Amino acid sequence: MQKGAIRVQTENIFPIIKKFLYSDHDIFLRELVSNAVDATQKLKTLASVGEFKGDIGSTDITVALDVEKKTITISDRGVGMTAEEVDKYINQVAFSGAEEFVKKYKGQGDGANIIGHFGLGFYSSFMVSSQVEIITKSWKPDAQAVRWECDGSPEYQLEETEKTERGTDIVLHINEESEEFLDEHRIRTILEKFCRFLPVPIKFQDTQINNTTPAWVKKPSELTADDYQNFYKELYPFAEPPLFWIHLNVDYPFNLTGILYFPKITKSYEIQKDKISLYSNQVFVTDEVKNIVPEFLMLLHGVIDSPDIPLNVSRSYLQGDPNVKKINAHITKKVADKLDEMFRTDRKSFEEKWEHIALFVKYGMMTEDKFLDKASKFHLLEDVTGGAFYTLEEYRTATAALQTNKENKLVILYATNPVQQDSYVSAAAAKGFKVVKLDTMVDAGFINHMEQKWENVQFTRVDADIPDNLIDHEATAVSVLSEEQEGKLKELFGQQLALPYIKVELKGLGAQDQPVIVTRGELMRRMKDMAAMGGSAASWYAGMPDEITMTVNANHPIYQNILQEGNGELQEKQVRNLADLALLSQNLLTGADLTAFVQRSVELMGNK
Amino acid sequence: MQKGAIRVQTENIFPIIKKFLYSDHDIFLRELVSNAVDATQKLKTLASVGEFKGDIGSTDITVALDVEKKTITISDRGVGMTAEEVDKYINQVAFSGAEEFVKKYKGQGDGANIIGHFGLGFYSSFMVSSQVEIITKSWKPDAQAVRWECDGSPEYQLEETEKTERGTDIVLHINEESEEFLDEHRIRTILEKFCRFLPVPIKFQDTQINNTTPAWVKKPSELTADDYQNFYKELYPFAEPPLFWIHLNVDYPFNLTGILYFPKITKSYEIQKDKISLYSNQVFVTDEVKNIVPEFLMLLHGVIDSPDIPLNVSRSYLQGDPNVKKINAHITKKVADKLDEMFRTDRKSFEEKWEHIALFVKYGMMTEDKFLDKASKFHLLEDVTGGAFYTLEEYRTATAALQTNKENKLVILYATNPVQQDSYVSAAAAKGFKVVKLDTMVDAGFINHMEQKWENVQFTRVDADIPDNLIDHEATAVSVLSEEQEGKLKELFGQQLALPYIKVELKGLGAQDQPVIVTRGELMRRMKDMAAMGGSAASWYAGMPDEITMTVNANHPIYQNILQEGNGELQEKQVRNLADLALLSQNLLTGADLTAFVQRSVELMGNK
Repeated sequence: MQKGAIRVQTENIFPIIKKFLYSDHDIFLRELVSNAVDATQKLKTLASVGEFKGDIGSTDITVALDVEKKTITISDRGVGMTAEEVDKYINQVAFSGAEEFVKKYKGQGDGANIIGHFGLGFYSSFMVSSQVEIITKSWKPDAQAVRWECDGSPEYQLEETEKTERGTDIVLHINEESEEFLDEHRIRTILEKFCRFLPVPIKFQDTQINNTTPAWVKKPSELTADDYQNFYKELYPFAEPPLFWIHLNVDYPFNLTGILYFPKITKSYEIQKDKISLYSNQVFVTDEVKNIVPEFLMLLHGVIDSPDIPLNVSRSYLQGDPNVKKINAHITKKVADKLDEMFRTDRKSFEEKWEHIALFVKYGMMTEDKFLDKASKFHLLEDVTGGAFYTLEEYRTATAALQTNKENKLVILYATNPVQQDSYVSAAAAKGFKVVKLDTMVDAGFINHMEQKWENVQFTRVDADIPDNLIDHEATAVSVLSEEQEGKLKELFGQQLALPYIKVELKGLGAQDQPVIVTRGELMRRMKDMAAMGGSAASWYAGMPDEITMTVNANHPIYQNILQEGNGELQEKQVRNLADLALLSQNLLTGADLTAFVQRSVELMGNK
Repeated sequence: MQKGAIRVQTENIFPIIKKFLYSDHDIFLRELVSNAVDATQKLKTLASVGEFKGDIGSTDITVALDVEKKTITISDRGVGMTAEEVDKYINQVAFSGAEEFVKKYKGQGDGANIIGHFGLGFYSSFMVSSQVEIITKSWKPDAQAVRWECDGSPEYQLEETEKTERGTDIVLHINEESEEFLDEHRIRTILEKFCRFLPVPIKFQDTQINNTTPAWVKKPSELTADDYQNFYKELYPFAEPPLFWIHLNVDYPFNLTGILYFPKITKSYEIQKDKISLYSNQVFVTDEVKNIVPEFLMLLHGVIDSPDIPLNVSRSYLQGDPNVKKINAHITKKVADKLDEMFRTDRKSFEEKWEHIALFVKYGMMTEDKFLDKASKFHLLEDVTGGAFYTLEEYRTATAALQTNKENKLVILYATNPVQQDSYVSAAAAKGFKVVKLDTMVDAGFINHMEQKWENVQFTRVDADIPDNLIDHEATAVSVLSEEQEGKLKELFGQQLALPYIKVELKGLGAQDQPVIVTRGELMRRMKDMAAMGGSAASWYAGMPDEITMTVNANHPIYQNILQEGNGELQEKQVRNLADLALLSQNLLTGADLTAFVQRSVELMGNK
């Protein structure tokens, strides 16, 4: 039997690093600046524990572009490296210097704020360079400066050199295919993307490009509302001010800081996902936080920073990570608690914000049961008349007498489009019913979901039946017409509306009620609405004609006039016009039918 | 000066492969089965060049799951390996055996069909295994079978063993965290995803899971329409039959085969992107082909196979790849040529398909100038009356006499919603104009784009002006009313419609024309439409009131009646009703105004 260790051929590793580890070439700058920040933080730690003595001096990091020489140089005044350290950290791939350092200095000073997890970042420089030089001098007393160079083949060269200042310069000789990076604007853009909030000042062409203490790293108690608003402006210069925000600050069982802002959302086309940025120790990681933030909160804006989320990770990796799952649950809880607190302490202001947050809240209630439990207490139903808001319990109390049906269920009457359903809303209001507005794009699903989750609650759209029957489908009152007159009227309507999906019914309603009312049963309408939204397996519903009921109010005085008309044709036109007016209220009169109605109306007006 | 080679510590490589190289754990099965296919193809090559003599026998690959032993075994009857080969290909990471083989046998037999590009695939097995065994026997005469094992640390063990058959068995001892893969259904799903069209029979639990000769690897001349339809069914069992298809087959300057199908698309919610699968030598790579297929063809369905697109690549890598850019341009050209051919050879069938392909064609014309040049010849304008189609040139010829304006521009009259705009369409048809239907979601952008690209063409919606003025905004005819009557009428309309965004004009149109016509100027309406679609910087347009012109036809006989009315209130109600009827034709009467109109109409009918 033969035993041995698997060997790796170094010349084959570089193309892999280059092609696979970093799909995004921009990353080299993030990695090298992060390394420079690490080296600086290490020096500060050494100073804080007394190992480094004397004046630290400026620790600014500089990034310099020399277009003529085709170089980019990253310089820090951190710990630097001795020849032995270069051999250990640079000449050996995949040895994480940072991990070793963190272990040693755990709990002391800034020791924990080391960015690098693997020691691979440096090698990303070969993605864009034909040659890389390191000129470095250790912080250690009387250290000898050294110069290392390598052209990306595994052969390197290491020699003594002169360097006055402590720290490291990395000089990248940009290769031909990467000349795009010899553009000042491009480099500035990359630095602003990845390094905008790094904790050490970073200077590019003499200007500092970063804010070293962004709001999220401060304590909430140190920040005013203005500070939060200003930080939001820094993140999204062109956005409207946010509604409110949540400062996240967790130490255990995972490390997480961040600020989540609730934007104003009214129109659906304003919704922008991917507005939360993920940082790891103030280094930008990604704008795609799909698995870290619960789906229903993806519309929030802001920043999350967690060193527990590794830098170069794939999305499917994040999905399975237990820390990520905990972060997800924590954010949900914090958001629910914040909304609950706002509702309890300043109801008026909460109501004013409701139109902007309704979408989050409803979507959250549909997707996360834990959120549903909390949100049922502060979820609001808005009266169509505007301005009045009820919680579920308040609505129940206010309407119990009139809107409880025979099965003892609370009937929540709603309008999906109060303007279009205006005549039905007015008719329901006349009966003393309270109609709420459910007009967001999630409401169709929300209604179905809440009928399952909330006990003894049923939703009925305000045009689902004639006003008298909205709560219970009871029998109806007496008609003032004679049996003969009723027969004649039924015949007239039947002639005009001989369509299988229109059901004509004669009922004796109040004389002040409409002469004809068109209603659409709740169940079928909902099925059709869901089907029209697409994706549903039951999409054949969408193709079915709209089943409607046309209730003729036999007690309306106009029928006395019409029945007295001698002229058959005029009578028919009048009946047809009354039917068309009712169809109009349901938005069901279109095309050639509408054109004919307009012409007939003009004609009837001219006829008198 | 010190020189040396950068060293790699093997124990640090495995976590990197595990975490970063394959974000998706499912991949191990693709890699191992691909390796088995490679070994089999190699053997066939050796046989074809005469190096392997004798009977190849069955070369089926089997995947076996043993839930009790917690193993998955992948077995092939390919070339196998000697102890030396195991040492070379397995014990040394990142040495690509496939590349060496391809170089040696280039141009001979199946040599070019080797899947693996890097030799890393095998190591992905450690993502899911606590231990991996290789039991292998080379094809070489009198070869000694060997057994290799490793627990994922770099320490391996290699020993002689007994094995009757030529080939390799890979035995994965699934680790605790990966027990999800000990599920038969799961394994079958993964195999069906990645290995469905591999060229060697693959059996799992005694059933073959792949089609070794999918349609796209055959020559177009070998395939009937039924073959293409059947392959589509194989890909999308629940989809409706496709409209037509394009068989791609390129050798130079890159290698590309595939079949793209045009699905039926009528409703926008049926649009499904990501329905094109990318394969590399019949191995499934991804469903995300965003950068390979031109954006406007993302709605197509089908398969693309190119060995020139490497397996484990990121999207940003693809963007820059010159081969990928060429593939993109080639696909665009093939699609344009196919559509052109269909249009020329069978116009009737092309017209029947138009509603389903209009979206592709228009979007393509807006985004790719090369496509625009070709498509301008077969792009169709459909008459609102249905059934008649014109190319741009045909429309120009048919309408030149009536629809050329003073600036010598062709005015294309269109309706975005022929049902809603019915009264305007009828009025335009009465003047002899041809109105076309532009009702897809891209048409607003398409119109703007084509006015730039097509010479001397202008689009005007059919309700942009009164029919007489649609082509040129000329002066109008004489009114039959006296100056005093006109003054009274203006006063009545002005009282009823004192809104800043409604402009009332009196004109003497034909007695048979409508009494009131509401129109919306083309320019402002378009701006508002674009703004309402969102994303536009000019979104303040969307918030502006609709500017409308209300043309009162002084020559309509009803005004003689109304002006003779003694009753001021009745007169006012009649005028208001005429205005409301015109607003209705423009879908501008809603909410409380519509409710009031309905009540007023009933009242006017009862009044007589």
